[in-house]
Amino acid sequence: MNQSPINLAEKFTKFTEHWSPKIIAKMNNYHFKLAKFQGDFVWHRHVHTDEVFIVIDGEMRIDFRDETVELKAGEMIVIPQTVEHKPFAAEECKIMIIEPAGTVNTGDAGGDFTVDKNEWI
Amino acid sequence: MNQSPINLAEKFTKFTEHWSPKIIAKMNNYHFKLAKFQGDFVWHRHVHTDEVFIVIDGEMRIDFRDETVELKAGEMIVIPQTVEHKPFAAEECKIMIIEPAGTVNTGDAGGDFTVDKNEWI
Repeated sequence: MNQSPINLAEKFTKFTEHWSPKIIAKMNNYHFKLAKFQGDFVWHRHVHTDEVFIVIDGEMRIDFRDETVELKAGEMIVIPQTVEHKPFAAEECKIMIIEPAGTVNTGDAGGDFTVDKNEWI
Repeated sequence: MNQSPINLAEKFTKFTEHWSPKIIAKMNNYHFKLAKFQGDFVWHRHVHTDEVFIVIDGEMRIDFRDETVELKAGEMIVIPQTVEHKPFAAEECKIMIIEPAGTVNTGDAGGDFTVDKNEWI
């Protein structure tokens, strides 16, 4: 079968771009992605799915229209389907994202941050 | 909306049992569970789903019928659907498990380790 462990720290060395999630694993029709966040993202929502962020290293913030949630390494959050949100990180923050394969990072917002096709690393 | 971060270390203080996954989050129809492994589990397989293990703290091993994979904190693995496996941890190991809601920990094997209904913590 040839199964190997997927080492998150090692995978994070394979890219430097911000806001460009890379796929590291597939479970059923879900992708596990790693991303580096820094600065301000765009307001967006995912119309068809929830989305999970797990902070692996650093700190970030998610703004919702009615509140703000601060997250640090070892913490996770479920962003509910259809809920508008905007990630922000003052300094580079390393994140794992779990969502259905094909989920676009900017949801229904589009724009320059959009990554239509995530690369496997 | 009242969203809060889910802190993994804090959730791990809420239970002591081994081999008894606790639910900490739901994303669509998937559960995120935390478990403490120690000793030998049973050979089993999940007929209808893949399963993800992420090691949060400690070290563990997964035996497959044709190979063995060692995992440590910061590493993850996807156990493919229908593939027989047996987790083992020499010392207590803290794990996050991601799989569809309703997935039974012993798969099709049954037996004393079976937890039919996972508790939320």
